[in-house]
Amino acid sequence: MAIFYQPEIPAGVHSLDQEESRHCVKVLRHTTGDTIKVLDGKGSIYEARITTASPKACAFEIINTITQDKPAHYIHIAIAPTKNLDRMEWFIEKAVEIGIQEISFLLCKNSERRVLKTDRLERKAISALKQSQGAYMPRINELLPYPDFITKVQEKRKYIAYVDFSNPAKLYHIAPPGDTYCILIGPEGDFTEDELELAIQNDFQKVSLGNSRLRTETAGLAACHGLNVINDR
Amino acid sequence: MAIFYQPEIPAGVHSLDQEESRHCVKVLRHTTGDTIKVLDGKGSIYEARITTASPKACAFEIINTITQDKPAHYIHIAIAPTKNLDRMEWFIEKAVEIGIQEISFLLCKNSERRVLKTDRLERKAISALKQSQGAYMPRINELLPYPDFITKVQEKRKYIAYVDFSNPAKLYHIAPPGDTYCILIGPEGDFTEDELELAIQNDFQKVSLGNSRLRTETAGLAACHGLNVINDR
Repeated sequence: MAIFYQPEIPAGVHSLDQEESRHCVKVLRHTTGDTIKVLDGKGSIYEARITTASPKACAFEIINTITQDKPAHYIHIAIAPTKNLDRMEWFIEKAVEIGIQEISFLLCKNSERRVLKTDRLERKAISALKQSQGAYMPRINELLPYPDFITKVQEKRKYIAYVDFSNPAKLYHIAPPGDTYCILIGPEGDFTEDELELAIQNDFQKVSLGNSRLRTETAGLAACHGLNVINDR
Repeated sequence: MAIFYQPEIPAGVHSLDQEESRHCVKVLRHTTGDTIKVLDGKGSIYEARITTASPKACAFEIINTITQDKPAHYIHIAIAPTKNLDRMEWFIEKAVEIGIQEISFLLCKNSERRVLKTDRLERKAISALKQSQGAYMPRINELLPYPDFITKVQEKRKYIAYVDFSNPAKLYHIAPPGDTYCILIGPEGDFTEDELELAIQNDFQKVSLGNSRLRTETAGLAACHGLNVINDR
């Protein structure tokens, strides 16, 4: 069954937004009476029937609603975007498939990418959410300078992934399940000593993601997946 | 320091193969006397000095050798290649970064891709090995029909990833550390009932990779990373 994303579903008449309506009616050629799936990204998955197959505002009625509980944990990955945007796009796609609650982007001293438009990344996240039929859309934040970001972190467990082979603390060993986590992932040139120091002053703990050297986007995904593994009880 | 891959390093005079020599001398403009790193993919990382900067056969002398022990575990992922080859290429790149010992490709009933050239995937693996400065090159096998493959598996722990939300056995809970593992990852259309049955007859255990629906390549990487996590002691 075709799946669509519609974050706002007001009471009364429901309809898909213009982009999703066009996709539903023009591309997939759905007509009135067809059943579709609609995700709101807020915990509900609707089985719906098309009442007006309009390519501008495809109206539907809800036949059945499945609601999913929020996970007990909260994974927030804050990552320095890579120069090559494809690498960020696949990080987003894979993280959404595997399960992530929030993604932030850091402007670090060694960042190769100093500007970032998040709209394409949003669309990647939506298509990954639809593909994996996830109930919750992660929050995706705009690029922020590193110092501005780390002073505002709300999560209880705060970690900074730092390439330091003398560092014994493995994220997957020290992070307790069922908690809220924020993990900082640096640029290809890594965090500077000053950035590391600033993180530690702000109660971030230095962690290792394993014994191998990982690219930025691989490190981000490894952190996300590893935390899902320890929470998958 | 620039890194090159040279699987065969005979006694006496050492040199890079033609492709790596061209890259070293023509692209990176290295000259006689420069120091480079050479990986043999068999556990040794050499620090070397160029003795003859020839673009056809760049000769070098070994200054220093670092040898790495083989990991105590052995991860063998057998995956049905996706229609889109890019997805297999990134699976290979990421799996090599994270750590994998063997990759096989399965021709399943629901496989969208029925032919696969592994040479491009080999090159992806080599560049990922160089990028992550890994000491061991994984073995990459040609595409095999599913029944031919699963009767020949040597690993002690044999698992089949099967999308079955009633299935409680999570790979990361049941796989013991320090062992040899083979995990079967099916095509987008999943394994057929007959294929599942055949695996179970051949002592494969049905496992889940978590609560979310994963694409083929994401499932392969999740299995690879999850086994690295439980072995990362």
